[in-house]
Amino acid sequence: MTVTISAFDRSPDGGKGLARDTRVRWALEEVGQAYEVRPVTFAALKEPAYLALQPFGQIPTYEEGGLVLFESGGIILHIAEQHEGLLPKAADARARAISWMFAAVNSVEPPILEFANARLLESDKPWSKERLPLVVERMRKPLRQVEVRLGDAQWLDGDFSAGDLMMVSVLQRLKPSGLLNEFSVLADYVARAEARPAYKRAYEAQLAFNTRK
Amino acid sequence: MTVTISAFDRSPDGGKGLARDTRVRWALEEVGQAYEVRPVTFAALKEPAYLALQPFGQIPTYEEGGLVLFESGGIILHIAEQHEGLLPKAADARARAISWMFAAVNSVEPPILEFANARLLESDKPWSKERLPLVVERMRKPLRQVEVRLGDAQWLDGDFSAGDLMMVSVLQRLKPSGLLNEFSVLADYVARAEARPAYKRAYEAQLAFNTRK
Repeated sequence: MTVTISAFDRSPDGGKGLARDTRVRWALEEVGQAYEVRPVTFAALKEPAYLALQPFGQIPTYEEGGLVLFESGGIILHIAEQHEGLLPKAADARARAISWMFAAVNSVEPPILEFANARLLESDKPWSKERLPLVVERMRKPLRQVEVRLGDAQWLDGDFSAGDLMMVSVLQRLKPSGLLNEFSVLADYVARAEARPAYKRAYEAQLAFNTRK
Repeated sequence: MTVTISAFDRSPDGGKGLARDTRVRWALEEVGQAYEVRPVTFAALKEPAYLALQPFGQIPTYEEGGLVLFESGGIILHIAEQHEGLLPKAADARARAISWMFAAVNSVEPPILEFANARLLESDKPWSKERLPLVVERMRKPLRQVEVRLGDAQWLDGDFSAGDLMMVSVLQRLKPSGLLNEFSVLADYVARAEARPAYKRAYEAQLAFNTRK
């Protein structure tokens, strides 16, 4: 089986691992599935041929034989269902792990995206300075709630799962602002995930890709 | 099997179907699974007993025997996996439908939530009037992209699926502002979904619940 994912020809983060191909590379590394990478330029993202694969003009896509998937959550769940290692075998625990995947992208990520928009897209606006603390406070609420739930545990619900992979990927978006360090439980959780050999391989692969000559 | 979901004791929308229990009721109606509803007051949402079920202090939760799930996406995917009717049987089509569920909550909903925050939480701020058009424009981009992908089709990918259920639920959030009407393809898509008998039953049930004496 040949798996091909798309990634930015050159990621805007220069290889810091924050583009969404990294989480898919990570999932593939966790399950030991080799993959190829198709670089896509910013211009190509807007072309009909690419939009046919990814209607939002984003990376990554996932191609496996005749199957084309987009949206990192859907791709990672597919990988987790095809291979062992990212979802518990027990039905109830599996359903809970999948719920954490949705929690990551729907309860935790939206205020983080709003914060990113405030910093990146509205930093030159007259309201920027006064508004930013409001946006940060809105983001802190779900972050505190994940901290409370995590408590002393290593992972969100038993063994490491695709739910942790998604949650950590979302939390990593806080690193450039330094805000992750406000939440020591979450910072440790992210560090624990980043110490996994599969994450390291994924990170190194995207770094090498984004700094290639 | 007894299924119990939680819902606001009184939804802030007064029964317009915009609280997140409606989408879970809808999924349950599509597959013909009876359910009970546990009302939760705003005060109870913050109590440890409820947070143990739902770490973000939101509705709905889903209880089935010893299984407790939260997060509407995870709940609906669980329902879709337990019963026929919400996911295609063919593996590739099934994976694509699940990707649409993630696309709804992660590519389409975040800018809609940001718009809701701008309207509901920042309407009294000095920047409100000048900033709102920016936020609306940010939201229009993925909406146009869903319109393009949908085109003349009835549903996103073949038959109606949990992907459509999630996407329509997300798009319904645009109704109070009137913005959905800007997108005639999407407005028709939402209307088509709302005409489904299962949706009507879910809507009527949440309305009766929220207007009970």
